Amino acid sequence: MALPGPFERLIGLLKRLPGVGEKSARRMAFFVFQAPEGYSIELADAFLSLKKNLSVCEICGNLTDRQPCNICSDPLRDRSTLCVVEGIEDLLSIEQAGVYDGLYYVLGGTVSPLDGEDLPEGSLDGLINMIERGRVSEVIVATNPRVEGDMTYHAVLSALKGMSDLKKSRLSYGLPVGGSIEFADRVTLHAAMETRIFVSGED
Amino acid sequence: MALPGPFERLIGLLKRLPGVGEKSARRMAFFVFQAPEGYSIELADAFLSLKKNLSVCEICGNLTDRQPCNICSDPLRDRSTLCVVEGIEDLLSIEQAGVYDGLYYVLGGTVSPLDGEDLPEGSLDGLINMIERGRVSEVIVATNPRVEGDMTYHAVLSALKGMSDLKKSRLSYGLPVGGSIEFADRVTLHAAMETRIFVSGED
Repeated sequence: MALPGPFERLIGLLKRLPGVGEKSARRMAFFVFQAPEGYSIELADAFLSLKKNLSVCEICGNLTDRQPCNICSDPLRDRSTLCVVEGIEDLLSIEQAGVYDGLYYVLGGTVSPLDGEDLPEGSLDGLINMIERGRVSEVIVATNPRVEGDMTYHAVLSALKGMSDLKKSRLSYGLPVGGSIEFADRVTLHAAMETRIFVSGED
Repeated sequence: MALPGPFERLIGLLKRLPGVGEKSARRMAFFVFQAPEGYSIELADAFLSLKKNLSVCEICGNLTDRQPCNICSDPLRDRSTLCVVEGIEDLLSIEQAGVYDGLYYVLGGTVSPLDGEDLPEGSLDGLINMIERGRVSEVIVATNPRVEGDMTYHAVLSALKGMSDLKKSRLSYGLPVGGSIEFADRVTLHAAMETRIFVSGED
């Protein structure tokens, strides 16, 4: 049976969203159909407002509704540390974890020659600019723990080669906390072995 | 960190959708932000159009953009069989499976005294009306295989008690095809045992 047109159309659009398949799109469309009309009006408006009122921060590349973003303009953040991430999603995850209070720089892509991908033009220049203009003394390269992330990490490091006073670091790899050795893959186990922490007998 | 207002707002609305949590709402909102503007405009319009152009069929309760719906008005469907379901979702699943070509009746709820739920008023009257006006000779009660479904099934049966010429049936319970005995729960195994099919030695 062909579903009624307006229903089919919404499902088709919802299915383009990440992680949404036929069945979940159908459940969502149903929910909206059964919810009070105010909900769909609000939702429609929120989608339109997102594109209209949001942009990326001209300094760091974060998602924002003002220039500069509320991280770059926050006087309480530590301006000596700069965390370099591949995408805004990574920035948000680190922020949500609440484990960092310095500044960020969003590269906006990865280096991945096999997929023909590279960092957007001017991305590394923007980073160097931010370091030179600010009081940055450490750059933490927080790229994702996979091949493209490693290549991106090396691209960032080589762009910063001249800056000998700058401390450079990357996130450590190892067993995910709360996970189990049984389910860890061998590459992770290898990393956990290689970068094992030596402890004194007293601990 | 507080996310920018328009982003926060969309995430809040998306999280109300079934099966959508904080993380997937964030991924969806990102996707929309990064997609061309045409997508959010279309999506917004599709949400509004859903409430504006869809209603339920006055005869069977199916979701429709015309009266009666395209199942009730299809001359090729078998008008002697009526499949009674709890909700429109169930109707759609049976239709998508392509295993049935009769008519439907959507009860629009379940009988569940513990949750204080009952069928909507007039629901069973509508069913009786549809049977009496049509040429229905069999009613298949396709309620869900759980306690509320069973109670709903009995409510439907007792409403049809007077109609002695009418054949009544329900879907069979048993092992899901493609599943395994190892993962079947004991109630399902019990049902599969109880309603086992006897075969001749020749098969």
